[in-house]
Amino acid sequence: MELQEIKSPADIKGLSVNQLEEIASQMRQAILNRTSQIGGHVGPNLGCVEAILALHYVFDAPTDKLVYDVSHQAFAHKMLTGRVDGYLYREDFDKVGEYTCPPESPEYDLFYAGHTSPALSLCVGLAKARDLKNDRYNVVALVGDGALSGGVAMEGLDAGGALNSNLICIFNDNQMAIAENHGGMYEHFRKLRETNGTSPDNLFKAFGWDYIYVAEGNNLSKLIEAYRQAKGADHPVVIHINTQKGEGYIPAEQYREAFHYRDPYDIATGELLKVSPGPDYTSVLKDFILKSVKKYPDFLVISSATPDNFDLNAREREALGKHYMDVAIAEQTGVSVMAGAARSGAKVVYAVVATFLQRAYDQLMEDWAMDPSPALMVVCETGIRAIKDQTHLGFWDIPMISSIPDIIYLAPANMEEYEAMLEWGLSQDKFKVAVRQPVYSLEHADYDVDKDYSDLNKFKIIRKGKDVAVIAAGDFLVKGRKVVDLLSANGINATLINPRFVSGVDTEMLENLSADHKLVVTLEDGSVEGGFGQRVASALGTGSMKVLNIGLEKKFVDRYNIPALEEEYGLKPEQITGKILSVL
Amino acid sequence: MELQEIKSPADIKGLSVNQLEEIASQMRQAILNRTSQIGGHVGPNLGCVEAILALHYVFDAPTDKLVYDVSHQAFAHKMLTGRVDGYLYREDFDKVGEYTCPPESPEYDLFYAGHTSPALSLCVGLAKARDLKNDRYNVVALVGDGALSGGVAMEGLDAGGALNSNLICIFNDNQMAIAENHGGMYEHFRKLRETNGTSPDNLFKAFGWDYIYVAEGNNLSKLIEAYRQAKGADHPVVIHINTQKGEGYIPAEQYREAFHYRDPYDIATGELLKVSPGPDYTSVLKDFILKSVKKYPDFLVISSATPDNFDLNAREREALGKHYMDVAIAEQTGVSVMAGAARSGAKVVYAVVATFLQRAYDQLMEDWAMDPSPALMVVCETGIRAIKDQTHLGFWDIPMISSIPDIIYLAPANMEEYEAMLEWGLSQDKFKVAVRQPVYSLEHADYDVDKDYSDLNKFKIIRKGKDVAVIAAGDFLVKGRKVVDLLSANGINATLINPRFVSGVDTEMLENLSADHKLVVTLEDGSVEGGFGQRVASALGTGSMKVLNIGLEKKFVDRYNIPALEEEYGLKPEQITGKILSVL
Repeated sequence: MELQEIKSPADIKGLSVNQLEEIASQMRQAILNRTSQIGGHVGPNLGCVEAILALHYVFDAPTDKLVYDVSHQAFAHKMLTGRVDGYLYREDFDKVGEYTCPPESPEYDLFYAGHTSPALSLCVGLAKARDLKNDRYNVVALVGDGALSGGVAMEGLDAGGALNSNLICIFNDNQMAIAENHGGMYEHFRKLRETNGTSPDNLFKAFGWDYIYVAEGNNLSKLIEAYRQAKGADHPVVIHINTQKGEGYIPAEQYREAFHYRDPYDIATGELLKVSPGPDYTSVLKDFILKSVKKYPDFLVISSATPDNFDLNAREREALGKHYMDVAIAEQTGVSVMAGAARSGAKVVYAVVATFLQRAYDQLMEDWAMDPSPALMVVCETGIRAIKDQTHLGFWDIPMISSIPDIIYLAPANMEEYEAMLEWGLSQDKFKVAVRQPVYSLEHADYDVDKDYSDLNKFKIIRKGKDVAVIAAGDFLVKGRKVVDLLSANGINATLINPRFVSGVDTEMLENLSADHKLVVTLEDGSVEGGFGQRVASALGTGSMKVLNIGLEKKFVDRYNIPALEEEYGLKPEQITGKILSVL
Repeated sequence: MELQEIKSPADIKGLSVNQLEEIASQMRQAILNRTSQIGGHVGPNLGCVEAILALHYVFDAPTDKLVYDVSHQAFAHKMLTGRVDGYLYREDFDKVGEYTCPPESPEYDLFYAGHTSPALSLCVGLAKARDLKNDRYNVVALVGDGALSGGVAMEGLDAGGALNSNLICIFNDNQMAIAENHGGMYEHFRKLRETNGTSPDNLFKAFGWDYIYVAEGNNLSKLIEAYRQAKGADHPVVIHINTQKGEGYIPAEQYREAFHYRDPYDIATGELLKVSPGPDYTSVLKDFILKSVKKYPDFLVISSATPDNFDLNAREREALGKHYMDVAIAEQTGVSVMAGAARSGAKVVYAVVATFLQRAYDQLMEDWAMDPSPALMVVCETGIRAIKDQTHLGFWDIPMISSIPDIIYLAPANMEEYEAMLEWGLSQDKFKVAVRQPVYSLEHADYDVDKDYSDLNKFKIIRKGKDVAVIAAGDFLVKGRKVVDLLSANGINATLINPRFVSGVDTEMLENLSADHKLVVTLEDGSVEGGFGQRVASALGTGSMKVLNIGLEKKFVDRYNIPALEEEYGLKPEQITGKILSVL
């Protein structure tokens, strides 16, 4: 049977194990075909081809409910549920996303689950609904690739363990998150692997689950046997499968971290097709880390399983020694460890991806902002040019962070300002400082960058004009410049302002502007609702100047085209200028 | 020795166990003395008097670092660290808060930790800082009263288990959260208690911790012995202590849920001094739950360990049977179970305290808003008259929820509107609806309350006037009425608007207002920054009307006096009216 003939799981039900193995092999080719051309999660998907094939072979989706977590490992599931073309043909790649996606397949993709760890709790909900409706089917979560260390996953183990009803968790243990795994549980899983699942103090049993171990997690026969054993269970069962991340593709087996997610590459060698274009904002952060560890004896840099935020490879991380800590996929703990270490006076930096920081909103409020714990947090992958999957948008960080008291959120506009803000933030023994790493474009300062930001909420005038003031935050300063130039071509000598702070407003400067300005325009590379510009609008509400807030909209957008979305949102300098002229 | 003579932990170091027991007895009296007069956490504090006495007897704070979680059980700690007057003398009650509090005692209270579960992660941070500084002291967390089921607590067990260094967790197992415990782990703890700690599949050992069990967790000698065994350990150790919630006070031992937190009561009988004043918003919710379970066969109501939100007692919860689910202190799981059950078409209500919902921000965004999971969430304890501890403020929910796409956040202004919104929200098969339970004052509608809110973001004019429009959201509608009356006395016939929706703006109505209005005033019982009013200000930024946003400020306030804070924030109707007149 050829992979492209598969239209639904029914098509594989009658196959022999040998035939399934042939399909698995074709799936691997398809994964490489797609990811080598447009990038994607290589290792996680190669590693669980068999786990998913067996899943659809033994269980009966869509009657049985299958949930993937993290769902970037579900390519094989998509191939089996009518979407194989998205892996075979370049012109169809766009039709499928990186994660499970209900609009793609309402029957087979129950949730997006683009963030790790919620599947067990979602499945408890599915199972509860099933039981309330007196239905009978299996609810199955495939959880792995580092997802178990997220707090909500353990909450789900806890809630699931108390469910006197069918619930199956396939724990895909590929011994990795994005990078190596961290935390006591992973040492425990190693022991389970080494003892064929018999090591004492079984974590899953402690939570009340039955436990089955499959040593050969890429062996279809063994998987099918274990799944059949669990199918129809009247209580919660974990099937712990030991898989190989990157299985079947030597570069991905060897360089598991590099092939977790890979930009387009040469299949023959695994080499990237494009080489990194030189120094960027990540390299500013990396240099800052390497400098700080020499400067501060009690320096600590924290990552929650995303060391690529610093561009630090395994060797460099090892060289940092005790000054580097990976808390696993556990942003709540990332923030609390930051706060805890800072409370004892250590110099702490925590770098985190904006979309994942959402998991730690409560810790930001209750464990950091409130406590006497000055530290530096770097927020990565923000704005319209960061991650384009709707599950990973960097649009919401300004509303989230700026609504919390006592966190100073800085948005640098260029490399020099970014560096200065990092230096200042880490040197603090009073303020809690978050810095929004720019993404939009690589810029250098053409003004004197301040070293000290302790005079809070002071905006900086880059160019003094009149009539119109454009306040362009962070990496949208470059857009502000273009708008001001276009206004100039229209005979308007506008003021350009770099606010630097997005968590507060320079009311004094706004007051002064009113003497000779009619309109204030705010630009931000984030959601307008609840964001920076609306604070300016509020501050100016009773004054004489009008206000125009420009930025991203409060809606989910998935795998968008950047120029098209900019146009839709009216973010092109010509559009912004046009709006300004129409308001004047 | 008399309790009031104790100024610091040094004062108990030389005492005998008998003397310590005498202190424990006095502490219990002091706990009852305070809580019976002003209310407070009775059971949790009675239960761990010995655990804390032994802690300060064996360890050497402030050199050794002690962290409490949840810190509402730390009264004994406060009594031992210079704050005993706050439990003995009525005039000094105000000097100490319900939770550990760094400004009260920077040396002994390291964190607020008013929300459950972060202590282990905070302690990992403290331990990391200690090791970086090459210091030597013990880092100890006392964790309990339901805190272990929160995801971040398990993340902390995971991170702690990998720490090759001193870290001690005293697990205060009082067999309860606010109500009974839920989840597989609590069954496991029961088995550990029944086997004197020897039951197989030890959860703590699975995470890599050493384990000590103390069957008599209210026995000072046994506690001291166990603590001494762990003191100075070079690796992570859990001491599991079996305590009695409410120990030493019969009403609290018998009615453990009622005495978790208790309003002022008669010590002799345990009876409340004031009886509940009749139907309120909670009773609207309760009636709605009891009606819905009859209406929908697949109805599910979810709580995350706060059944008091529904005013459902243990008998009533039991009567709900499979239609009621308590996910334990685990709001992430609360939201994900809601989304999961709703995905299968069940009719789901999740009621949650606003401040605790902060833990589930990511689930709101990624597991609910994004997925096809229509359900109803009820947000309790919001605004200035809800919980007055700075760790539990209900000020931030509008910025948090209203910045997430596709969640409709409704703010009813009275009992009839509240009921109508609950009914509508639960009947949805399309929209995800959150309803903000009013708190400010008990109101009845004097207008026709709409049954259908599917025409999104439509504000309602309560009284049509001109010049000034007061848009008063939710339970501040009552304030809006007073302001409009005061304006009337000043010759201004203002318009009064009930927006109902706080997650969006009725741009059409705002447009229409501009014909005969000069000023729009927004009132909201929540933080202005990132909130509802700023959205109105932004929408009106380029128009002719001025905007005045009134609400709470973005800052932490602790145990405030409501009228005083209202005055400070300019929220009294006279103050609001004055501001309006000064703007006009």
